[in-house]
Amino acid sequence: MNVDELLNELQNTWYKTIPLSEFMQVQPLSFQESSFQESSFQNLGFQQQTLTVTAPIKPNINLHQTMFAGSIYTLATLTGWGMMWLQQQLQGFSGDIVLADATIRYLAPITEAPTALVTWPDVSLANLATGDKAKVKLEVALHCKGKLCATFSGLYFSIAKTSRIKIK
Amino acid sequence: MNVDELLNELQNTWYKTIPLSEFMQVQPLSFQESSFQESSFQNLGFQQQTLTVTAPIKPNINLHQTMFAGSIYTLATLTGWGMMWLQQQLQGFSGDIVLADATIRYLAPITEAPTALVTWPDVSLANLATGDKAKVKLEVALHCKGKLCATFSGLYFSIAKTSRIKIK
Repeated sequence: MNVDELLNELQNTWYKTIPLSEFMQVQPLSFQESSFQESSFQNLGFQQQTLTVTAPIKPNINLHQTMFAGSIYTLATLTGWGMMWLQQQLQGFSGDIVLADATIRYLAPITEAPTALVTWPDVSLANLATGDKAKVKLEVALHCKGKLCATFSGLYFSIAKTSRIKIK
Repeated sequence: MNVDELLNELQNTWYKTIPLSEFMQVQPLSFQESSFQESSFQNLGFQQQTLTVTAPIKPNINLHQTMFAGSIYTLATLTGWGMMWLQQQLQGFSGDIVLADATIRYLAPITEAPTALVTWPDVSLANLATGDKAKVKLEVALHCKGKLCATFSGLYFSIAKTSRIKIK
């Protein structure tokens, strides 16, 4: 399965199982993997994986004609959940993903479809292979018109199931 | 305007201006005012005002067949917003209510319509009369089947407008 197919499957999973995500028209935009290599430390190269997700303003409007606080939070929550789900596919594990707690700060009104971005903190989900759970703290940044409008921090757990597909 | 009429107006305000609240079928249940009087301190009587709000599971389901984390947060957010709105009506002020930041903890899965309860911390909104803003921290507790399932803490601001109706 390639990245575009995975993002389609992520959206289908949301829409089939979480009606609110379909009403909000939440949509994965991209999953990117960037390689970094410190020239003076040849062995310290690392990869940064990012997921971006969006949602239009119209179904998510509030009485100030900006994005509703509940929609902003839900978009951020699903972005983090989506990254957990993608990592399970990429690392070849399967687990039930749940959010334990979260904090959000609203910094500026969102007046058009924002971009929610999460970076994977390079954590292994190998615990899932032994029937244990994996615990990952994810930070999501929401930008609108080039400006940081909200920050979200969520603690996610994934509880072991059997292993699944691998990305090619 | 009596309390039932106010709760109806609150729901109408949500449904007219926040489409997500209508999709979630968020519904104010009660607004109660209880008087407490310490027998040994006759002059220390105080009033406790509580608002309860609910939403059904069906439009708010997730893939575990429990209430979606985004819906739980949104229900709590609207409960706090609703209390701010009611207090503005009760105290005779009007202001734009916004949420600055919030923290939520998910303690147990929610398997049937929960009750979200907020208690007013006995704060005056009189700042609104002088064109200033009022700042209130509200705690919302979500119960399901008699069990505490989530706690929410949100910092709300109300920014001054002209004064409005008074409760009778």
